[in-house]
Amino acid sequence: MIQIKRLSSTDPDFDTTLGKLLAFENEQDDAIEATVANILIDIKKRGDQALFELTRRLDHLNIASITDIELSPDELLQALENLPSDQRDALEQSAERIRVYHKKQLIQSWQYTEPDNTILGQKITPLDRVGLYVPGGKASYPSSVLMNAIPAKVAGVSELIMVVPTPRGEKSDLVLAAAAISQVDRVFTIGGAQAIAALAYGTETIPRVDKIVGPGNAYVAAAKRRVFGLVGIDMVAGPSEILIICDGKTNPDWIAMDLFSQAEHDELAQAILLTPDTDFLDKVAQSIDRLIETMPRKNVIRTSLENRGALVKVRNLDEACTIANKIAPEHLELSIDQPEIWLEKIKHAGAVFLGRNTCEAIGDYCAGPNHVLPTSRTARFSSPLGVYDFQKRSSLIQVSQQSASKLGAIASILAHGEGLQAHAMSAEYRYKIDK
Amino acid sequence: MIQIKRLSSTDPDFDTTLGKLLAFENEQDDAIEATVANILIDIKKRGDQALFELTRRLDHLNIASITDIELSPDELLQALENLPSDQRDALEQSAERIRVYHKKQLIQSWQYTEPDNTILGQKITPLDRVGLYVPGGKASYPSSVLMNAIPAKVAGVSELIMVVPTPRGEKSDLVLAAAAISQVDRVFTIGGAQAIAALAYGTETIPRVDKIVGPGNAYVAAAKRRVFGLVGIDMVAGPSEILIICDGKTNPDWIAMDLFSQAEHDELAQAILLTPDTDFLDKVAQSIDRLIETMPRKNVIRTSLENRGALVKVRNLDEACTIANKIAPEHLELSIDQPEIWLEKIKHAGAVFLGRNTCEAIGDYCAGPNHVLPTSRTARFSSPLGVYDFQKRSSLIQVSQQSASKLGAIASILAHGEGLQAHAMSAEYRYKIDK
Repeated sequence: MIQIKRLSSTDPDFDTTLGKLLAFENEQDDAIEATVANILIDIKKRGDQALFELTRRLDHLNIASITDIELSPDELLQALENLPSDQRDALEQSAERIRVYHKKQLIQSWQYTEPDNTILGQKITPLDRVGLYVPGGKASYPSSVLMNAIPAKVAGVSELIMVVPTPRGEKSDLVLAAAAISQVDRVFTIGGAQAIAALAYGTETIPRVDKIVGPGNAYVAAAKRRVFGLVGIDMVAGPSEILIICDGKTNPDWIAMDLFSQAEHDELAQAILLTPDTDFLDKVAQSIDRLIETMPRKNVIRTSLENRGALVKVRNLDEACTIANKIAPEHLELSIDQPEIWLEKIKHAGAVFLGRNTCEAIGDYCAGPNHVLPTSRTARFSSPLGVYDFQKRSSLIQVSQQSASKLGAIASILAHGEGLQAHAMSAEYRYKIDK
Repeated sequence: MIQIKRLSSTDPDFDTTLGKLLAFENEQDDAIEATVANILIDIKKRGDQALFELTRRLDHLNIASITDIELSPDELLQALENLPSDQRDALEQSAERIRVYHKKQLIQSWQYTEPDNTILGQKITPLDRVGLYVPGGKASYPSSVLMNAIPAKVAGVSELIMVVPTPRGEKSDLVLAAAAISQVDRVFTIGGAQAIAALAYGTETIPRVDKIVGPGNAYVAAAKRRVFGLVGIDMVAGPSEILIICDGKTNPDWIAMDLFSQAEHDELAQAILLTPDTDFLDKVAQSIDRLIETMPRKNVIRTSLENRGALVKVRNLDEACTIANKIAPEHLELSIDQPEIWLEKIKHAGAVFLGRNTCEAIGDYCAGPNHVLPTSRTARFSSPLGVYDFQKRSSLIQVSQQSASKLGAIASILAHGEGLQAHAMSAEYRYKIDK
């Protein structure tokens, strides 16, 4: 029997209990921070030499030169051809759906001309060069390659550089095939904080990038935080979460398995169900107890559900939506009739899965939208990874002769108000013709 | 005579010299970090009590309760009415132009239906509650209030909370008037790291926000970095910079003053001129020497230009654009004929000022685009502050009955490939009808 918390929104201490359940502090580990700080300094100073030494030592790779750490396009294609055809088809179909969806996210340049001929606008350009970190070894996720690489290429990034550690030379055909399908430009078999440092500072072998994306362990996350500012980074993700709102009419096995699909990621993952139907909570609890035994990852699932999961009775679906907005979950399933009506009440969520057919797993792999989503309540202020993360804006201003006096005069008054006389004078030159 | 560096792109060590000139490390101050860390803990634990104590001690304010630290809407309106009419008009016209420009940045929700009725989309929502930090005392910049507040209100942020320290009770009518014009919802007279902490954690008096924007001193910047993740923050800005590309045909006094307008901000500000015309460099140097004596802030300007400025001879305008892309300047003036043609070559810049009429100062105050721009080469991967910083996206996925099998099968294959069996089973339930 799984001891998953049962809560009710009518409990007097419901808000506090829920608050505690949601709380997650990404505490820093001083030992990791110190190690990472040293690795960054080492790579910055000694470049390839340090990178090769660290890779030899940490990944047990016998490398002598660049040719030993770069994978050729042929090797990637070979990996793709090595796949069983069902896996290859699934990867390619998934990639195509991700591409189609993400193309809709492209932002375009615009400008407008005012009546007196002043032109204002916004110019959109892609990033030049992006680094994609891909974890190696056991946690080898080809879907993560697709989800990070495709938006960058759709944005028009001209050089997408993937790094993936290959401890003892162990490579994943699925990951390399995903790189081939996503049109990654170059692949280096390096990892850890040293790979992040190499991408951020550049070495003789590794080109310096403008932004680094992709998941990684605590060392990678610490290194990303430290190089942030010098290069852009994506969000450092917390544990994954799902919130399911169900009206009680979905097959309870489905809901139990959807909770499992989140819980199996990680012992810190969080899976919560909200429903107004008490009987349904019992049924889901029974499904959980029955189905968990069939799960290869049952120990992870059990720990996750017992420590961080909850089955919550709510007054009604309206209250469920209010609670969802407070939680701002990474994944939100609306397993209810007419989900589109309830969607109107949802303000904060990374991705919303509408209707009983739409399990999170389909979204994780192949629906089209990105699976890199804001965790730990950050959906209150941030968005899924998207094409817009690989494009940036420049403001455009072209002041016409006719409007120079009007705008110059406003600027001059405000500049004097702020005590910035050179600003004022610079604006005044543009309209005091005799000067 | 100002000793401003003279460089030529044909110098053998030009790249190195330029690289050194651009280098700026925002080193952390351990004493500030420690102070800020303690203030954050204190506010988090003791809320208002700590906030009031710190404000009494650091801002020498005699406060007893919330009514002493919140300014009423009437006080803001009164400040607006206190302004001389030319200042009020200038602020209002500037605000209106900023509003019109930023409305063009609004991003809209979209969705599309696939042939088999699966619906995919992206829903846009504004942030609920945003905090705006405004420095007090001498560096009181009403334009900064407009530039930060208006995009938030255009995005639809329902509660915009401004904090501004008022040491010894000293308030700036211009700043409060700008808050009134920008429709800021509440204003609290608190500042420093304690104000950032109050906004991030919430206290009995100060509501907890979802994002904090606005400039501040080193304590404020350190506090923002530390609460990042719990709340969103804007970029922590480095020193301001301008790069001017001139064909040699602009009045050299204008160019000198444009360089001054950047240099007067701060001794660390950076002003660089690129031109293919050696004679013009001499003329600008002469203008600098003559005009600097008229500048109230001449000491700041001198230090900035001598330490961080440069007058650079380039081979031609084409090379100037290449160098500009390498620098990725915060502000880029194209003081040349047909600037729109050269704009095509510009990939990385925060804002581009096209043509001889368009000085940066006009853009700083009233052209319409934002003056909060990416500094220190971050225009390679980031954008001006905009409405999009106060909106966020949620992905929408509604899988139809017809497409559940197709998508479920792809997800199942990929999930098994990644060893995530609950993901696979969750997808399989949606199409294996008999289960």
